Amino acid sequence: MAIEFAKVVVVGVGLIGGSFSLALRAAGAVGRIVGVGRRLETLERARSLGIVDAVGGMDAATLSDADLVLVAVPVAQTGSVLASLTPLVGPSTIVTDAGSTKQDVVAAARAAMGARVRRFVPGHPIAGTEHSGPEAALPELFRNRNVVLTPLAENAAADVARVRCAWEACGARVQEMGIAEHDEILAAVSHLPHVLAFALVDHVAGRSGGDTFMSFAAGGFRDFTRIASSHPEMWRDICVANRNALLKELNGFGKVLDALRDMVERGDAPALHALFEKAREARNRWLKENRS
Amino acid sequence: MAIEFAKVVVVGVGLIGGSFSLALRAAGAVGRIVGVGRRLETLERARSLGIVDAVGGMDAATLSDADLVLVAVPVAQTGSVLASLTPLVGPSTIVTDAGSTKQDVVAAARAAMGARVRRFVPGHPIAGTEHSGPEAALPELFRNRNVVLTPLAENAAADVARVRCAWEACGARVQEMGIAEHDEILAAVSHLPHVLAFALVDHVAGRSGGDTFMSFAAGGFRDFTRIASSHPEMWRDICVANRNALLKELNGFGKVLDALRDMVERGDAPALHALFEKAREARNRWLKENRS
Repeated sequence: MAIEFAKVVVVGVGLIGGSFSLALRAAGAVGRIVGVGRRLETLERARSLGIVDAVGGMDAATLSDADLVLVAVPVAQTGSVLASLTPLVGPSTIVTDAGSTKQDVVAAARAAMGARVRRFVPGHPIAGTEHSGPEAALPELFRNRNVVLTPLAENAAADVARVRCAWEACGARVQEMGIAEHDEILAAVSHLPHVLAFALVDHVAGRSGGDTFMSFAAGGFRDFTRIASSHPEMWRDICVANRNALLKELNGFGKVLDALRDMVERGDAPALHALFEKAREARNRWLKENRS
Repeated sequence: MAIEFAKVVVVGVGLIGGSFSLALRAAGAVGRIVGVGRRLETLERARSLGIVDAVGGMDAATLSDADLVLVAVPVAQTGSVLASLTPLVGPSTIVTDAGSTKQDVVAAARAAMGARVRRFVPGHPIAGTEHSGPEAALPELFRNRNVVLTPLAENAAADVARVRCAWEACGARVQEMGIAEHDEILAAVSHLPHVLAFALVDHVAGRSGGDTFMSFAAGGFRDFTRIASSHPEMWRDICVANRNALLKELNGFGKVLDALRDMVERGDAPALHALFEKAREARNRWLKENRS
């Protein structure tokens, strides 16, 4: 495709930022990609892996002529990153993010950017692996995956369209929704499963003799807990940022689990069978409808 | 390898029974395999897939000259299957099973077999997929997987060794342990994750607008819930059969989840980080130690 963005700056060249860079490059949609981040060593690795063309700083030289800046850092850092870059970006620079939560990110963006928040288009690519860092980046990570944009009332339609265009160049399906709706849905389908996986591993491995227990775990356990190998800092931030929606999900799940526990306690085979059958059908229907 | 078993009968030619047949055959360890089961149509499919050589019945012609009988049916049916086959097997026939729970199976075996229980060697191959039926059978399913035998005081060492030999021919690592220990460990590393996966799918998909929620689920959700596509009847039986150990795990997990819920409620970032970090380290250590 034609070069849509002469210069893109990626702040945080890890799994998501690195994959965005590789995908844009593979699509031929970008002229030059500059990486910015906390650790110079990580950025140098990203450059040597061919993910970014150059390593930049949080400075005007790097940011003032950028067409697009993607902020791909743990959500708790988004506010301070936006505060740092706001005075440095150019008048036509669009800023977007990849944070897994949106209410806190938007609040932080408003606080950090003031009136310039009109050039900030909040986004969330719903894709990932349990690995992190630039070595984990994959050009195909977003192909056929959902990217949600939660545009602000202040955003120009053209800016939203530009961010959509970048993610579509990565092969993603872009959808728009409200900020609260995003956080509510993601609490259920992503944040809750992640904390359950962490909790299960802690529960099984943390006991006396836990290593023996774990040595008899099989493929089901491995897949069920894959996401418990995810980035602890990122997930800590998500839990705090999306606290209210996640609490609602934890409470709701707790009720399902209590009911299931009671079925087990009273040996209620028909009720267990009905619950399992219903869940299997729902999952299989979902697999069928979301085959990519 | 040499033919160790001239005739093997598999009762229940599904994922486990079918994979056992394919693996024994691939190893050259068996002369002839006969399938027995509830549904003739399933057995005919197993024969046409080359999993068994012939379809047999619960009769002396099928069972009296068998060297080894594997009972691979949902655990609640084990007792009645053993009661049916006990008067029909020959004096030198060894019987084993593949049930995911052992206390209930052993109790059922004692009730069904009487003194003949000495030829019953309880076993459990810790392997599987979320698919079921003969079409799901794989010759490699047990390769480098654990098979646990929980021998009875009455078992002859030679019979235990023969069952071990069969599973080793399938490529499995065979270990012996106590019956109660088996059920306790499996409740934690297998039965609990399965019921959590079913409960999560039910919780997310069962709400109003659940399909929309599910449409934003990604790879983490897919892997986390893979085991919720498992056989509902099999898992219903396991939950009832291993009720006490599973209840203990559900209660223990509930406590971890309550603690995690409280961390989220009070926004305790350091505690969340510590729990996630500990879980990730435990899982990554396990992955490293159990790489096959």
